[in-house]
Amino acid sequence: MSSSVIPNVLAERYASTLIKDIWSPSGRIAIERDYWIAVMKAQRDLGLAIPAKAIAAYEKVKQQIDLADIDARERVTLHDVKARIEAFNALAGHECIHLGLTSRDLTENVEQLQIARSLAVVRLKSAAALGKLAGRAKEFRSLMLTGRTHNVPAQPTTLGKRFAMAGQELLIAHARIDELAARYPVRGLKGAVGTQLDQFTLFGDAAKVAKLEARIVAHLGFQGALFAVGQVYPRSLDFDVVSALHQLGAGAASFATTLRLMAGQGLLTEGFQKGQVGSSAMPHKVNARNCERICGFSTILSGYVTMTAALAGHQWNEGDVSCSVVRRVALPDAFYAIDGLLETLLAVLNQMDVFAAAIGAENQRQLPFLATTTILMEAVKAGVGRETAHLAIKENALAAAKAIRTGEGESDLVRLLAVDTRLGLPEKKLRALLADPKRFVGAAPQQVDQFVRLAAALVKKTPGSATYEPAKLL
Amino acid sequence: MSSSVIPNVLAERYASTLIKDIWSPSGRIAIERDYWIAVMKAQRDLGLAIPAKAIAAYEKVKQQIDLADIDARERVTLHDVKARIEAFNALAGHECIHLGLTSRDLTENVEQLQIARSLAVVRLKSAAALGKLAGRAKEFRSLMLTGRTHNVPAQPTTLGKRFAMAGQELLIAHARIDELAARYPVRGLKGAVGTQLDQFTLFGDAAKVAKLEARIVAHLGFQGALFAVGQVYPRSLDFDVVSALHQLGAGAASFATTLRLMAGQGLLTEGFQKGQVGSSAMPHKVNARNCERICGFSTILSGYVTMTAALAGHQWNEGDVSCSVVRRVALPDAFYAIDGLLETLLAVLNQMDVFAAAIGAENQRQLPFLATTTILMEAVKAGVGRETAHLAIKENALAAAKAIRTGEGESDLVRLLAVDTRLGLPEKKLRALLADPKRFVGAAPQQVDQFVRLAAALVKKTPGSATYEPAKLL
Amino acid sequence: MSSSVIPNVLAERYASTLIKDIWSPSGRIAIERDYWIAVMKAQRDLGLAIPAKAIAAYEKVKQQIDLADIDARERVTLHDVKARIEAFNALAGHECIHLGLTSRDLTENVEQLQIARSLAVVRLKSAAALGKLAGRAKEFRSLMLTGRTHNVPAQPTTLGKRFAMAGQELLIAHARIDELAARYPVRGLKGAVGTQLDQFTLFGDAAKVAKLEARIVAHLGFQGALFAVGQVYPRSLDFDVVSALHQLGAGAASFATTLRLMAGQGLLTEGFQKGQVGSSAMPHKVNARNCERICGFSTILSGYVTMTAALAGHQWNEGDVSCSVVRRVALPDAFYAIDGLLETLLAVLNQMDVFAAAIGAENQRQLPFLATTTILMEAVKAGVGRETAHLAIKENALAAAKAIRTGEGESDLVRLLAVDTRLGLPEKKLRALLADPKRFVGAAPQQVDQFVRLAAALVKKTPGSATYEPAKLL
Amino acid sequence: MSSSVIPNVLAERYASTLIKDIWSPSGRIAIERDYWIAVMKAQRDLGLAIPAKAIAAYEKVKQQIDLADIDARERVTLHDVKARIEAFNALAGHECIHLGLTSRDLTENVEQLQIARSLAVVRLKSAAALGKLAGRAKEFRSLMLTGRTHNVPAQPTTLGKRFAMAGQELLIAHARIDELAARYPVRGLKGAVGTQLDQFTLFGDAAKVAKLEARIVAHLGFQGALFAVGQVYPRSLDFDVVSALHQLGAGAASFATTLRLMAGQGLLTEGFQKGQVGSSAMPHKVNARNCERICGFSTILSGYVTMTAALAGHQWNEGDVSCSVVRRVALPDAFYAIDGLLETLLAVLNQMDVFAAAIGAENQRQLPFLATTTILMEAVKAGVGRETAHLAIKENALAAAKAIRTGEGESDLVRLLAVDTRLGLPEKKLRALLADPKRFVGAAPQQVDQFVRLAAALVKKTPGSATYEPAKLL
Repeated sequence: MSSSVIPNVLAERYASTLIKDIWSPSGRIAIERDYWIAVMKAQRDLGLAIPAKAIAAYEKVKQQIDLADIDARERVTLHDVKARIEAFNALAGHECIHLGLTSRDLTENVEQLQIARSLAVVRLKSAAALGKLAGRAKEFRSLMLTGRTHNVPAQPTTLGKRFAMAGQELLIAHARIDELAARYPVRGLKGAVGTQLDQFTLFGDAAKVAKLEARIVAHLGFQGALFAVGQVYPRSLDFDVVSALHQLGAGAASFATTLRLMAGQGLLTEGFQKGQVGSSAMPHKVNARNCERICGFSTILSGYVTMTAALAGHQWNEGDVSCSVVRRVALPDAFYAIDGLLETLLAVLNQMDVFAAAIGAENQRQLPFLATTTILMEAVKAGVGRETAHLAIKENALAAAKAIRTGEGESDLVRLLAVDTRLGLPEKKLRALLADPKRFVGAAPQQVDQFVRLAAALVKKTPGSATYEPAKLL
Repeated sequence: MSSSVIPNVLAERYASTLIKDIWSPSGRIAIERDYWIAVMKAQRDLGLAIPAKAIAAYEKVKQQIDLADIDARERVTLHDVKARIEAFNALAGHECIHLGLTSRDLTENVEQLQIARSLAVVRLKSAAALGKLAGRAKEFRSLMLTGRTHNVPAQPTTLGKRFAMAGQELLIAHARIDELAARYPVRGLKGAVGTQLDQFTLFGDAAKVAKLEARIVAHLGFQGALFAVGQVYPRSLDFDVVSALHQLGAGAASFATTLRLMAGQGLLTEGFQKGQVGSSAMPHKVNARNCERICGFSTILSGYVTMTAALAGHQWNEGDVSCSVVRRVALPDAFYAIDGLLETLLAVLNQMDVFAAAIGAENQRQLPFLATTTILMEAVKAGVGRETAHLAIKENALAAAKAIRTGEGESDLVRLLAVDTRLGLPEKKLRALLADPKRFVGAAPQQVDQFVRLAAALVKKTPGSATYEPAKLL
Repeated sequence: MSSSVIPNVLAERYASTLIKDIWSPSGRIAIERDYWIAVMKAQRDLGLAIPAKAIAAYEKVKQQIDLADIDARERVTLHDVKARIEAFNALAGHECIHLGLTSRDLTENVEQLQIARSLAVVRLKSAAALGKLAGRAKEFRSLMLTGRTHNVPAQPTTLGKRFAMAGQELLIAHARIDELAARYPVRGLKGAVGTQLDQFTLFGDAAKVAKLEARIVAHLGFQGALFAVGQVYPRSLDFDVVSALHQLGAGAASFATTLRLMAGQGLLTEGFQKGQVGSSAMPHKVNARNCERICGFSTILSGYVTMTAALAGHQWNEGDVSCSVVRRVALPDAFYAIDGLLETLLAVLNQMDVFAAAIGAENQRQLPFLATTTILMEAVKAGVGRETAHLAIKENALAAAKAIRTGEGESDLVRLLAVDTRLGLPEKKLRALLADPKRFVGAAPQQVDQFVRLAAALVKKTPGSATYEPAKLL
Repeated sequence: MSSSVIPNVLAERYASTLIKDIWSPSGRIAIERDYWIAVMKAQRDLGLAIPAKAIAAYEKVKQQIDLADIDARERVTLHDVKARIEAFNALAGHECIHLGLTSRDLTENVEQLQIARSLAVVRLKSAAALGKLAGRAKEFRSLMLTGRTHNVPAQPTTLGKRFAMAGQELLIAHARIDELAARYPVRGLKGAVGTQLDQFTLFGDAAKVAKLEARIVAHLGFQGALFAVGQVYPRSLDFDVVSALHQLGAGAASFATTLRLMAGQGLLTEGFQKGQVGSSAMPHKVNARNCERICGFSTILSGYVTMTAALAGHQWNEGDVSCSVVRRVALPDAFYAIDGLLETLLAVLNQMDVFAAAIGAENQRQLPFLATTTILMEAVKAGVGRETAHLAIKENALAAAKAIRTGEGESDLVRLLAVDTRLGLPEKKLRALLADPKRFVGAAPQQVDQFVRLAAALVKKTPGSATYEPAKLL
């Protein structure tokens, strides 16, 4: 890290090489130069007088990316694209690139390619995370856990099911990103106000212009181009992208929040990496700092949602550039954030350590409270009115709970219920009911199986996801 | 309007009956009661001892919706669902509804049905708007217009193309909503923590529980249910919905913004409704107040995006209700807002009045500036280096522009260019170039045609959209 | 509740009469009519030919507020102010109101008065909440509590100190609202584009116009008026207001979140109101639903922050009304939300029930882990290097923690530390250290005292706050 | 720019040295080291056994900031503060820093100092901008301009007044930042959970701990410290800061938006810097790209508002670090953004070029429409009912407007009004009314004077603001 440049914190502390290579200044210029060369080749094939040796000259120098030189040029021209044109021309010794193009014919398409490639990285890592999560869900498929609503014990579930819930949410978000990636359209070569006028003028022939655009769209790897744009593509498309990233990140954040809650109860830990220091002042602590970080990334993404939500709907006429500085920040940073989030999630899924003994101890404390709805159902089956039974159980449960909290009175709920004549459930029957904890987890294990199947299918159709491993976290 | 109730402004001032009927208190209760009855019927068919006459009793009274009675009950129980259960039971004289259900088994499914039905209304109106917009685009397919980027004249386009740009953006948003609606999953009958435990207890049989849920999902009209949820469905799904609405609204808002800009230049007006008063102080003004309102709705939606973005990622364990009050506000109000926006958009599309003479006058003033890129291309074709030509044209254009602004110097750009030896384009050639304005609009008319085709296809596949007309605006 | 009007949920379910009376349709019209009458009186005093009997006629009918009539008029004129002018004129049988006024001369000032009055309500309730919170902090000033960072046990604190932390945050937010209220400026009588032209024309005299405005500003109760506005006051002022409300709500939400966490551990409950039903399915549960609701209100406010943040910075020229529909929603609803939040907070502060026995039991489990930093300091005082001691304690604490989680190995941290030669702290000394739990709470009790003093001062200077009690919650 | 580090775009492209020096990695470490040394000195003075030569050793090496070394250490310890402690210790050859401190005793105070210093920079530049704006307002104090509401011509104002409106909004935002800076409290030395336990243990004496904290607060330059915090200061304070920045930026953005509108009408330009290239394809264009950029910065700030709004209200217990990554992004980036915005605003104020001839031409076109309210007042003075006159003027104005738009019918509004018997205003009287344009600008010039006075006072009390000049923009 050089002291003379202020680094992008999200990129440098959290994002992986896969994403950084797409959005780094030099990574972007590499894409641009390939794009210019593709345009030149297509223009030449369609009849423009671009010498083959000029194209060769550009090809030869395209990897000579001197950011300092480009930066210096921009500080003169005050126009970033102009600076990059001049730099590439100077290296090649020709003036053949960017013919009939406006700046946005370059930058829009290049940025959309960055987005499309980044979406592919996100899909890879998201599938990898779902694969690992399914592994964990399977591992704890039947481990009974005190389920909580409103953060208080409610009914039993299994730990695997709790993980499958996160899987359910992530699968929905993944599906949305798949849909987006499948239809994500590129702007194409449309000229200053979207009418393709300058290419028309260059070629004097609509068919050739159409062929040129088709060649470039194919070079970029998109299915198709937008058909009616102005200077820029609609900015609501950026919102489409960033909101999809937030949706994915939010699923992970709900999961991380629940892990943080469990860590607070001593039921699990997100694990330590080798050499990691917990708190500098309190060395015994095993903080859920990675889970907290996942939540932090989600909050960050919500900020980029706001930025792109505000761009959408505020375009003037055929386009303005009030979006420019916003997109320079929000698009790469949103991808750095989701990438850091997914890397962190993958690490947590690898490292986390479940304390089954502690989970079991909690279950013991919470039964028979957790069984009250089962008891309610039994009472209804035995002919008691639902509302009557509800009231009786409520009164006794509250009494037992109070006894536990204050240390005074009968704290054994079973005993209290057994003597309540409104219910007509003798103690023997009640004790029998509670004897088999597994009967309380309902369909949880089967729901895990369903998640495992769906995750496996996703991993299978996503090349590389089965073996992807996160880099070491900072 | 009664003075004793503070009305929901979005619903009462702007939303249409179609949406209000879904989200009004009585509309919601009607859905709930149908839902309870469907559950009872299915439970009875699957063997529960629910008397047919009890079901008949509920059927008979289901339309007796007394909001004041329910409200009074809630003020006692402090539990809204409980209040509605009691009210329905009291009317029917039975206690058979809500067996084995938790509150969320009711409310989640009912609210998701409200969302699904509302999405259908949005799709209808969105398709209708695209149809009307296509009509306007076709009407002005070839009307040359001074295209603007950075809000300053840039290159010619056509008015129809400007409308088609809005169409392009709206079509993308519409496609996203279609995708969402097609996969939108319902929570189903899952019980207190999502394990279906209470229905298991009721039926003692997993197959019967599965059948029950399938019956209810079919009753609701969904394709399928979520497989692994907690007390509630993942809240990122609400963000999915509301962000899709914002995306649609944003497309409309960009369009409305451009109309506001054009109104400011006197090129068109959004039109007056019969009896409408403009400004109370300045009677001659024809304000683009409906277009401003569309922009306002978009801003409102961005706020609901923030609310639902914040819900997503903050769920605890098997669910909490920190989302409850948020969803009571954000979900209906987001639909009221998008509905009001679409109604307003439809009215603007119906009423707006284009001043072709004013548009033509502007074109006259802006030519030959609008033709500079064409001139640049001609110079390049004639062998001048691109950068050289660019500089020469820029200098002359700036000089002519300055002359216009100050009233001093030569303001005829053609004359200035003709005598600039760097370009080698004689005045005669330049004048010939500019003689046919239509040559400057490039592919704009063809792009309009493409939009018209796509919009027609969409309208065709969306029943009712071809004939839908907005209600009179307030 | 009438079935024909969709109510504003925030107003009808959560807000108190104090706020609703300010923002209800009839409340607003009452303010408006007083305003018109004040303008007429001042105009007459300054020489305009307005008959005294006309003013008397308006005075006489001003309380005849027929919302249905006004609504019907608006549906004809499509202009809300016009409709209200006509309705008042018709009642009085004169046409003397609104002379020389533009709509915004009325609505801006009226809405700012609604805001100013609402801020006073917020300050009252905020002071009341701080008073109650201080009472609770004092009550538990010295009750040792296991302090948590990253949600895991960290160091002891006291429960009173935990409450004082919330007090600290709320005091800052209260101070900000005080600052805002003290400088909140009103737009005044500025005319269509802010130049006071129409009043100049009416009076033909700048001095009279200034006197008129001063009279009206005094009538409204503001210190002063803005000096250079357009049609409207700057919308960043709305953001100033709503962001201040969010800041206050956020302090309450952090407090509520911590209560929810404590409820999950069984350390306290937010309490039940008489007759309240917990969960319809799980009757024993004592959910922190009011605390969840406070968090929900905070999320709602963040959405109105986004709306007003987006209004700010998007005003065109002398003003547009793209803000109109947004402000109709965001301003009242933000006040309803903060009011509902404060009512809920007050109720929680009244009702909450602390389980000191459970808090004590947790302390027992967490000592001696909570004392590790104290042990670290003792080792440093005894001459061990800080980093050396840190490592030794960390290793032993992790070992003991692991033993607890797995049930295997030595779980008594004191014993482990005593035999670690790196530390040189014999068991006797360590046991002595831990014998007096009170030594671990540091300055917590004194910090509580400081909060109690500041809260008392605030309550004293805020009339009514000492005795304010919330209405019963829904 | 090095290709190996991804730069922070906001810092590297837009922010000035003043801000970058505060937030750069090395800038921050310099602050930290001074802080540690101040703590050591105070601890020694209060009796701790810290050798003077150790302190001297730290002093000697404090400027040796090797970011690569620190980075390498962090990648081992995975704890950023630990890495920086180790690096400083290794340089000095001692282990005396950070005694009795927790990480947050360092980082909270350092970050709050960064914020406080940044607020001072913002206040400086904001005052400078107000000074320049007042200069421009004065320059065009009486230049009549067609005022617009709803973006259509409404009533005359002056250009200076339009600038003064922006000044009004910026003055309010500046006042808010002043208030914030005046009360902004620092966390102080509070220990792991805020109870100062570890300093108590070190000193064994509450009075000494209080003295230590007072020394440190004085070293940092704050007026006072928070009295009851946990591990961290309340995060709503970050929202307080960032929302204040957005408020300031929004004022600038509304101004910039209006300049963009005026540029679109050819009334002014924001100006060119030397060597600047406009559009690469359309060389004649003078884009309002800096004004667009100001709007973009405002949108960016709204995203950081959302991030910090979401942090506020989500703190757990005595603190968690889910805020950590968010604050690493949102705090510096918000300051880079407002700094870039203010630099851009200052440049625009320096460079902008007003076209008085074009402004005059527009006035000519818009009179007599702009005078309709004046005519209305005259009719009322002549005894016509206000509503009658309003209708007559409206009908004639709409007729004339229609004639202008279509080229058919009488387009001279004066002639139409003169023959309308409802008004009774002969043509001669009407023509006389319109003869003196200056009578239509009302109090605009005096409002400018008021702004100029207030801005001058602010500049006077803000050292350096009178002479501050922006750096050259990119």
